[in-house]
Amino acid sequence: MKAKSGAGTLGTLHIFDSTLRDGAQGEGISFSVQDKLHLVRALDELGVAYIEAGNPGSNPKDLEFFREVKKIKLDNSRLVAFGATRRKGISCADDANLASLLAADTEDVCVFGKTWDFHVTEILKASLDENLAMIKDTVAYLRAQGRTVIYDAEHWFDGYASNPEYALSTLRAAVEGGAQCLVLCDTNGGTLPDAVRESTEKVVAEFGLPVGIHCHNDGGMAVANSLMAVKGGALQVQGTLIGIGERTGNANLSTVIANLELKMGLSCLPPGKLATLTPMVRRVAEIANVTVENGMPFVGHNAFAHKAGMHIDAMTKNPRAYEHVRAETVGNERSFLMSEVAGRSMIIEKLRKFDEHIGKDSPLAQEIVNRVKEMEHEGYQFEGAEGSFELLVRKNLGKYKPFFDLHYYKIIAEQPDGSEGCTAFAQIKIGVDGEDAITAGEGDGPVHALDCALRKALERFYPGVKDIRLTDFKVRVLDSRSATAAKVRVLIESTDGEEAWSTVGVSSDLIEASWIALVDSFEYKLILDVEKRFKAYL
Amino acid sequence: MKAKSGAGTLGTLHIFDSTLRDGAQGEGISFSVQDKLHLVRALDELGVAYIEAGNPGSNPKDLEFFREVKKIKLDNSRLVAFGATRRKGISCADDANLASLLAADTEDVCVFGKTWDFHVTEILKASLDENLAMIKDTVAYLRAQGRTVIYDAEHWFDGYASNPEYALSTLRAAVEGGAQCLVLCDTNGGTLPDAVRESTEKVVAEFGLPVGIHCHNDGGMAVANSLMAVKGGALQVQGTLIGIGERTGNANLSTVIANLELKMGLSCLPPGKLATLTPMVRRVAEIANVTVENGMPFVGHNAFAHKAGMHIDAMTKNPRAYEHVRAETVGNERSFLMSEVAGRSMIIEKLRKFDEHIGKDSPLAQEIVNRVKEMEHEGYQFEGAEGSFELLVRKNLGKYKPFFDLHYYKIIAEQPDGSEGCTAFAQIKIGVDGEDAITAGEGDGPVHALDCALRKALERFYPGVKDIRLTDFKVRVLDSRSATAAKVRVLIESTDGEEAWSTVGVSSDLIEASWIALVDSFEYKLILDVEKRFKAYL
Repeated sequence: MKAKSGAGTLGTLHIFDSTLRDGAQGEGISFSVQDKLHLVRALDELGVAYIEAGNPGSNPKDLEFFREVKKIKLDNSRLVAFGATRRKGISCADDANLASLLAADTEDVCVFGKTWDFHVTEILKASLDENLAMIKDTVAYLRAQGRTVIYDAEHWFDGYASNPEYALSTLRAAVEGGAQCLVLCDTNGGTLPDAVRESTEKVVAEFGLPVGIHCHNDGGMAVANSLMAVKGGALQVQGTLIGIGERTGNANLSTVIANLELKMGLSCLPPGKLATLTPMVRRVAEIANVTVENGMPFVGHNAFAHKAGMHIDAMTKNPRAYEHVRAETVGNERSFLMSEVAGRSMIIEKLRKFDEHIGKDSPLAQEIVNRVKEMEHEGYQFEGAEGSFELLVRKNLGKYKPFFDLHYYKIIAEQPDGSEGCTAFAQIKIGVDGEDAITAGEGDGPVHALDCALRKALERFYPGVKDIRLTDFKVRVLDSRSATAAKVRVLIESTDGEEAWSTVGVSSDLIEASWIALVDSFEYKLILDVEKRFKAYL
Repeated sequence: MKAKSGAGTLGTLHIFDSTLRDGAQGEGISFSVQDKLHLVRALDELGVAYIEAGNPGSNPKDLEFFREVKKIKLDNSRLVAFGATRRKGISCADDANLASLLAADTEDVCVFGKTWDFHVTEILKASLDENLAMIKDTVAYLRAQGRTVIYDAEHWFDGYASNPEYALSTLRAAVEGGAQCLVLCDTNGGTLPDAVRESTEKVVAEFGLPVGIHCHNDGGMAVANSLMAVKGGALQVQGTLIGIGERTGNANLSTVIANLELKMGLSCLPPGKLATLTPMVRRVAEIANVTVENGMPFVGHNAFAHKAGMHIDAMTKNPRAYEHVRAETVGNERSFLMSEVAGRSMIIEKLRKFDEHIGKDSPLAQEIVNRVKEMEHEGYQFEGAEGSFELLVRKNLGKYKPFFDLHYYKIIAEQPDGSEGCTAFAQIKIGVDGEDAITAGEGDGPVHALDCALRKALERFYPGVKDIRLTDFKVRVLDSRSATAAKVRVLIESTDGEEAWSTVGVSSDLIEASWIALVDSFEYKLILDVEKRFKAYL
């Protein structure tokens, strides 16, 4: 691995992604070697300067990964291996963790040491001087082995607040050892932005070396803290692309990057890459098997979604009215949520996707407005259900043909449990172009059983159905005073790994409501496939 | 509604919650009048100074709410109605929205006007002078009607950046009209913390009036921006308790409050309330039917969850090692389970109903705490399910005997519909004291059919069942990523016309979860009857 374009000279701003290392500390996160290789490809494609790829000393699986990753040619990123300073009382050459760190065979290493006197004496149970020696020795040893050394000052801000003189002396030890970059870590994540900036300025002025920032989100301010550190002179920002990490997570780099580029005018990705941020975040989230929160700044589904009627009116006059940046700049899209206060102007806006010449007074628009109103009256809500809304518009525009007919479904649910602890069984009969399919499925509860049976029936005709993964399933009881006879609204979010869409169904029968949302989801995916394969003909 | 202890003199720091108004603009949020009343009770109990409760001008349903809410006695909070300045070209007396605002009949009103020259000319299509007159007239009119007027400067930060002179003149107009507090809004949510602080300081210095801050999270910095405004002299912080709101949401007040109290040493809740923050956030999220993100600072399940082995080792030596604050201070705990502090005292209190001498350290209490923790791990939550909680305590105390045994239930659901349009049929067999009952029911969906069948079977033995009316039925999908196989929590509220109670069931099968909650509801009612009829003997 050689120096790549994304990692320029030390005077420019570098994004340092730790999804593979610190991100792996997030609850429920567990990366296989293959996952990690996919992540490296994605992050390199996005163009971050550094990818911190593992801690070979504490995770033996990481060494296998470091062997494999060498086969990948990176265009933009440098790989970094991470480890601790040598243990107390031994030499660097005798330290197994350092041996593993070297075995990862990366040009760059990131090594962390203790800053906070309390941690040295209470947790490490070492003397303050021994800690300084551990830092200096380790950095010097790694430099002597030809590595570029980034020094992570763990608990920098707590340490500096507790004993500034000692904290500074730990950085001095790293510099004496030959560290080429000093990273200030808010390990416990509780520091305020003004304190982060002040202390960063101090270190920048004192050492004349490139300084980095590594924030956690325990106080809810990891992004702001990262930006304030950059204002204080930091040139490297560490975090994880989608914010995953221990406890409340690391600084969300997608938010940091968008702010640096769009608000502070600082370039941190190769040209053109910012516009791929949203799809890239979704891809990384897919690999990590986590959900991109709808409200995630810049890249979330709702980041540019407007609901209040007054806001929507204003947005149709000028998009600056209620958007801090243009959605396209980060690869996201504006959307208008349907709500009781929202008007017809948003429906027109959506129709224009299909026919840009459609007028405000078009009878077709009026027809769809009426249909939407009727359906809203029945309990539908198309905000958060773009997929179903698009199908509705298509049905009214004549740009739709059913993919199958339902002859019947029949579900049997019982207690005590049936075979293998299943509580429900479904049988379904559908027809596609005159050919019938009868299948059965079982599952935890009726909807799961029905989902299984329908998939089996459809896969024969439409193999694309195999790629559909339901990522979210929500149930909202509408007139909850009708209790068990109440209407329910079911919202399903789905993905095929590339696109994500959401669909909705309403009924006083939960199974039927789920069925409607499920069918919309499957049909939406099948239309996507048609559009991709046959776009040229359409 | 009179001034309450939480809202003191204007020199102290006030929390202003807008969950009912700005929070209602969040995607998927739709509050009934009952939901809003529940929210008011919760927020008052937490002790926020102001509850912004609706926009009667744009939402006619809000007037019904304002009539109802008068029946609630508030201990800590003042209610605020929200509205816009008068429309251009008419007098305040002729403005229907202002009439609605006054009809809400609150002592305090919050009225917003335009700050940003671009918005005045491009969106409002008014002259800059007309906008100033609209602001001044409106504030003066509301003051003349005896209201305390909080003035919200919409788009303050964008306006101030674009045309600082004009922006300041809009505040001057509000002050001339008699505004008693000036709130600076980052409506588009894209301002950086240093800019927020600087501009807040400027306004504080210029007007000598209490200043508030209202941030949105589009740049991911709403919390940091709110805190920096307080450092700049702001005395009122607006937001929503769980951060819901348009697009990426409002400033998350749970994070703001914890930071203000614990990091900045500023008191903003009545004494003792901070330790109830986590359960209160969960209660509000339940009412809003949204999920508290696991990674939410301070109150999320993972906010104090440690994964890295090294961190856990250190934590056993000293909890300061990797926690920025103590979990108990915000009612959270170092595991993913609900607060032991809150849970435990709730359990002791319940136990005292049965045995008033029960001590804090009773082994029985510990046993129940453990059982509750286990069940919470499975997805139970007893905060909104007092009925099930009492049954749980009774079961552990030996003060319970099942009212019936279930032999089986069997449900058939089908499409197309069966007889009389019913979609589901249930058959059930139960036994009471050696005697069996086999009944059948039909309904809209499987749960309704099961409810009907169970009632029929029980009525023969327990006529009191006839009085039970289910008044609410809520379904929450827990691990919604498991989609149709996900665990669900069903919450049922019931009444017999005199008492009201709520019960809960959890399962990956929605029918089974509903069954559990249904049985708890019926049993709770039957115990109530026993207590009433035989109290003298017990």
